[in-house]
Amino acid sequence: MKLSHWVTAAATMLAANLLVASEAVVVDRSMSEQEVLDAQQGWCDALLAIGQRYSSEGHAAAKALAGQVIDAAYGYQMGVVLFKPTLTVNPQTFRTTRAGALSYFVGGDASFPKDDGFALKGWKSCDIDNAAIFIAGDSATTLGKVQFTDGDGNKTSVDKTWVFVKDDLGSLRIVGHHSSLEHQGE
Amino acid sequence: MKLSHWVTAAATMLAANLLVASEAVVVDRSMSEQEVLDAQQGWCDALLAIGQRYSSEGHAAAKALAGQVIDAAYGYQMGVVLFKPTLTVNPQTFRTTRAGALSYFVGGDASFPKDDGFALKGWKSCDIDNAAIFIAGDSATTLGKVQFTDGDGNKTSVDKTWVFVKDDLGSLRIVGHHSSLEHQGE
Amino acid sequence: MKLSHWVTAAATMLAANLLVASEAVVVDRSMSEQEVLDAQQGWCDALLAIGQRYSSEGHAAAKALAGQVIDAAYGYQMGVVLFKPTLTVNPQTFRTTRAGALSYFVGGDASFPKDDGFALKGWKSCDIDNAAIFIAGDSATTLGKVQFTDGDGNKTSVDKTWVFVKDDLGSLRIVGHHSSLEHQGE
Amino acid sequence: MKLSHWVTAAATMLAANLLVASEAVVVDRSMSEQEVLDAQQGWCDALLAIGQRYSSEGHAAAKALAGQVIDAAYGYQMGVVLFKPTLTVNPQTFRTTRAGALSYFVGGDASFPKDDGFALKGWKSCDIDNAAIFIAGDSATTLGKVQFTDGDGNKTSVDKTWVFVKDDLGSLRIVGHHSSLEHQGE
Repeated sequence: MKLSHWVTAAATMLAANLLVASEAVVVDRSMSEQEVLDAQQGWCDALLAIGQRYSSEGHAAAKALAGQVIDAAYGYQMGVVLFKPTLTVNPQTFRTTRAGALSYFVGGDASFPKDDGFALKGWKSCDIDNAAIFIAGDSATTLGKVQFTDGDGNKTSVDKTWVFVKDDLGSLRIVGHHSSLEHQGE
Repeated sequence: MKLSHWVTAAATMLAANLLVASEAVVVDRSMSEQEVLDAQQGWCDALLAIGQRYSSEGHAAAKALAGQVIDAAYGYQMGVVLFKPTLTVNPQTFRTTRAGALSYFVGGDASFPKDDGFALKGWKSCDIDNAAIFIAGDSATTLGKVQFTDGDGNKTSVDKTWVFVKDDLGSLRIVGHHSSLEHQGE
Repeated sequence: MKLSHWVTAAATMLAANLLVASEAVVVDRSMSEQEVLDAQQGWCDALLAIGQRYSSEGHAAAKALAGQVIDAAYGYQMGVVLFKPTLTVNPQTFRTTRAGALSYFVGGDASFPKDDGFALKGWKSCDIDNAAIFIAGDSATTLGKVQFTDGDGNKTSVDKTWVFVKDDLGSLRIVGHHSSLEHQGE
Repeated sequence: MKLSHWVTAAATMLAANLLVASEAVVVDRSMSEQEVLDAQQGWCDALLAIGQRYSSEGHAAAKALAGQVIDAAYGYQMGVVLFKPTLTVNPQTFRTTRAGALSYFVGGDASFPKDDGFALKGWKSCDIDNAAIFIAGDSATTLGKVQFTDGDGNKTSVDKTWVFVKDDLGSLRIVGHHSSLEHQGE
């Protein structure tokens, strides 16, 4: 079998040319642990920001910011988000639509009469303590505690699962979010 | 530019040969909705089976079966499972290890003193009502209600998120499982 | 341990309500075999369409169509496409940019002086015979023969690998494309 | 709405306990660029090792090693590999089975009469120059030049696409491999 052969001299010249081209273009659509941690922190920061906006500029401004946060951090434009917020009750426990998420964070929507706005409760800090992270490739799941502290120093700790996917622009988006108050036993 | 050409007659013969080879081998590692539904139903069936084994053959037999179920349906061998069972309490809320999952289902482990065995509570039915399913490619997340009915007809309804990945052998495995009693509001 | 209990009557009412909600929303970002086959056929159809446009409306119109095809079927907007066309030569073998792909299909770009437009060669048919397909979840790879027939009945058969990913809008996009003339041996 | 509240002192104690648990377990099944580069280098190293084994211990030993390499580096156990080697010809161009790959590397299989063993050609170096890498999450594709140098300094350069997936044990496996001699133009 005859292969294409070059003499060493020519091959060396070729190798030199190849070195010029040796910067491979790399596109990486997988998720790194750091990207996951940053997305989690971004959620906490956004929650506090919505509350601060409410204090400083009122409900309409807070609602506008919450809409921006949802559009940037959740995946509703992908078709659905599997969102079970901490404090919702039947028959509106699940907030699979953008409207349902917005109402949960800032209330004021007659379609969701029991919502009073989780982001408006005056939270001063939001601290994440992950128990485990599972990065599957095109998605990542986290499980852990998230602790919210209000202006009086009262703390609320929830058990929280987040599922993230990466969109075409490289941003992580929440497509699963299950939050629950700690079970207190008997 | 000169391409390799054949006359029509020869090409027709080639085409005939190609038809012989036209059964493409297809390997599909993605998940279908039906596979997800089957895996959910498998979880319910296994939960009931563990309880029945307990009634008919006692605790040791139920524990053996629970171990088999966990090894077949969860992903602990992948390194971790993000499991927040319905009824666990701090500081052992999360069951990221196989031992923690086994204790949750059948109890009897001194390392998890508050577990009395969720699968041993005499459940007669386990019904799943999905609110939404998000299949990301190599993972899938579900959110919905799961309702357990005991021998007296009493029902317990939980909000449940499952995250599945597919292993090399084509089996779906639970790598995320967040279950919580329904929030009752004020 | 005390669970939330309902009497059977109430639970039956709840179950009735749940049935109302029992149409789960499903978002499926994985790829099916049929989607892969459709994307392959779409490539062939587009190649022939560019050639027909060239015959009927000239080079500018063909180039415009080729640009639309590339934007719709390849993944250059994701950052790079791993495209090794059949007939390119060093030092421009790889067409990792949109401009390089466009020149390959319709020529006429002084930056790629050896391109004479693969889509302009008067192809009358484009037939795909897959040897194998591997769907990994959020990507799929195919390997097989693609046979092009020109207006004189002459046939050119190439070995072709395609790698597809699915974008946020659900369209398959080519991110890998390696095509080579059949090796003729000694 | 009443949340679970703790006084600051108790919450501080809890926070201290949480810190103890703050080492999240992380399972990462996505692929990094470095893992891809390592897998490519591993392929080159294995090719040279098979040739050296052939020189030092003969054909049977080389064949045994080649089998080990295929089992460790390719994904035949997943069902199929989309392998188009550099030098194969019709009707056995594609080597979608383990036997076909083994024959390509070391020859000596009457079922593949034209194979004389690509790994037995006395290659002294194998150098990879990537043009681009696309990591999709659960798969990664590379495109570039691979240059083989024999004992006389003669060089053969091929255009090569590799597609890798990660198995359950965390090893990258080749599921797509398209290699072609450089097209020489007219």
